[in-house]
Amino acid sequence: MKIYKKYQLSEIVNQLLEGNKALLASCITLIESDLKEDRSFVHILFKNLPKTTKNSIRIGITGVPGAGKSTFINTFGNFILKNEPKRKLAVLTIDPSSSYSQGSILGDKTRMESLVLNDRAYIRPSASRGILGGVNAHTYETILFCEKVGFDTIFVETVGVGQSESMVKDLTDLLLFLAIPQTGDDLQGIKKGIMEMVDIILINKSDVIDGPLLQKTTQDFKNALHCTSSKRNYWTVPIIKTSGLKQLKYQNILEHIDAYVFKTKQAGDFNYQRHQQLEKVFHQQLQHYLIKDFYNKNECNIHNQIQSLSLSDENIFDKIKELLDN
Amino acid sequence: MKIYKKYQLSEIVNQLLEGNKALLASCITLIESDLKEDRSFVHILFKNLPKTTKNSIRIGITGVPGAGKSTFINTFGNFILKNEPKRKLAVLTIDPSSSYSQGSILGDKTRMESLVLNDRAYIRPSASRGILGGVNAHTYETILFCEKVGFDTIFVETVGVGQSESMVKDLTDLLLFLAIPQTGDDLQGIKKGIMEMVDIILINKSDVIDGPLLQKTTQDFKNALHCTSSKRNYWTVPIIKTSGLKQLKYQNILEHIDAYVFKTKQAGDFNYQRHQQLEKVFHQQLQHYLIKDFYNKNECNIHNQIQSLSLSDENIFDKIKELLDN
Repeated sequence: MKIYKKYQLSEIVNQLLEGNKALLASCITLIESDLKEDRSFVHILFKNLPKTTKNSIRIGITGVPGAGKSTFINTFGNFILKNEPKRKLAVLTIDPSSSYSQGSILGDKTRMESLVLNDRAYIRPSASRGILGGVNAHTYETILFCEKVGFDTIFVETVGVGQSESMVKDLTDLLLFLAIPQTGDDLQGIKKGIMEMVDIILINKSDVIDGPLLQKTTQDFKNALHCTSSKRNYWTVPIIKTSGLKQLKYQNILEHIDAYVFKTKQAGDFNYQRHQQLEKVFHQQLQHYLIKDFYNKNECNIHNQIQSLSLSDENIFDKIKELLDN
Repeated sequence: MKIYKKYQLSEIVNQLLEGNKALLASCITLIESDLKEDRSFVHILFKNLPKTTKNSIRIGITGVPGAGKSTFINTFGNFILKNEPKRKLAVLTIDPSSSYSQGSILGDKTRMESLVLNDRAYIRPSASRGILGGVNAHTYETILFCEKVGFDTIFVETVGVGQSESMVKDLTDLLLFLAIPQTGDDLQGIKKGIMEMVDIILINKSDVIDGPLLQKTTQDFKNALHCTSSKRNYWTVPIIKTSGLKQLKYQNILEHIDAYVFKTKQAGDFNYQRHQQLEKVFHQQLQHYLIKDFYNKNECNIHNQIQSLSLSDENIFDKIKELLDN
């Protein structure tokens, strides 16, 4: 049974603010829903939750598969919570690829075992939807929602290298790239888009890697960054050798994150970027519901046009025009 | 000056059918355009071109960066054209990543030098657009267009590993994956989505790779395929060791492609898949123009709503509802 049929709104709000994780999970499921009834509830829920008062920080975490993201998130998340007793952490995952493969990241939660058990942490396993705009819009709402119920540190994790980084970049204040030592050839694939987006580079598993390879990887990234035109003269992307297992240089990473937030706020870039992101989400939401509404209203016509499609008939433009002119 | 302002329609049609590559390029630019005037011309042009009579084959080519795709396309393209004197080849590239990074695949055309010079080949450098639906829809139209003017072999190449493979899969009959020997850890990232989509695996650069590593890579792919549930009992994905530089086993690759086409046609899957793709493109086009039209009509309102967005105001839902209800 839907929670809004089971509980009073005030009760839901209270429970959420008291940290009820099961209810939190149910609400996020409703945020990800496109059903009108669910949307209405979410709308009202948002209005009844208090405005965020804390300064939140949204951190994107990306890296090639096998870089050790889950382990890093688990130990680094715990590190933050231990060092800053007032913080609350929400971990969200974006996985656009699974819209095709239907697969999801198995075992992620088990690798984050100790974080899962932390009262001040909430981990939301991957939710992916067919439409890219949908993923972004829903994740954005989920971030806002988490902040409203008291989470001030948000990790948005993504898998793989590809389209998903730019999505995470569009949702967060700061992008962490988790790398592992590898040959120059492999770096080729990473360099292109990522180097323009990343704010901090972490070289993971540096405790078990040979010195020369580690040195070479660091140099490769330095070179790659050097080729990227920086838009911000006040920030040089640091490359930090770490280890998710051994928790190497975690204090150092945290200091760099704080410094980044401080400097971008000082320059006005922090809020500027959030504004840009809000605008983008606005367009995505608008387009998402525009399409949704249109399909609901024209279900029958669209169905008929599709039935009449034939491989030798290239006039899908005519059919589309007819639908749009109706 | 736009070609339709410069030439008569009949003249354009004749020139296209005679193989005028410059005109072909101009027409594809118009296909990629969203201007109403350009759309109208494309619409009329499509109606005035003859129906495709030849059996076309659309081949998707993907692989990690550095796998040697350009070299392979260059030499394999030439090989096909030499072996089958009546064939004509068009090479199209999809690069969704560059919508963010603004970068494009430089030097691709130079690496395909000898194919560029072939009269029966046409190479279209990467055209990428902000909206993913847009890329797909326009590339689909470009494929149809190329087929209408006489190309019966279409290569659709994509860069990197990520979202773009599923796009290419949605546009082609057969997906070739170009791999290079690498360690098991790296394979992890490739396995997941790709193994479910790929129809033929080529291990490139096999002439210069150590025996044991080559053997291990082959075995890794075999294992990865084994874990994937095949939907077609009549096709086992072959793993062929090749070399784009030395043109190793090209006859063998061609035979596998022909066998794939024969078997999927026999099973009815060939046309079924094209139908599914057509339907998908139909939806993408519909959504693309729905959004386009809406923004054109509501430009001013949308602008005002965006101006009024504030970071502390989470009611973008209200604003969107207002726009949609208008």
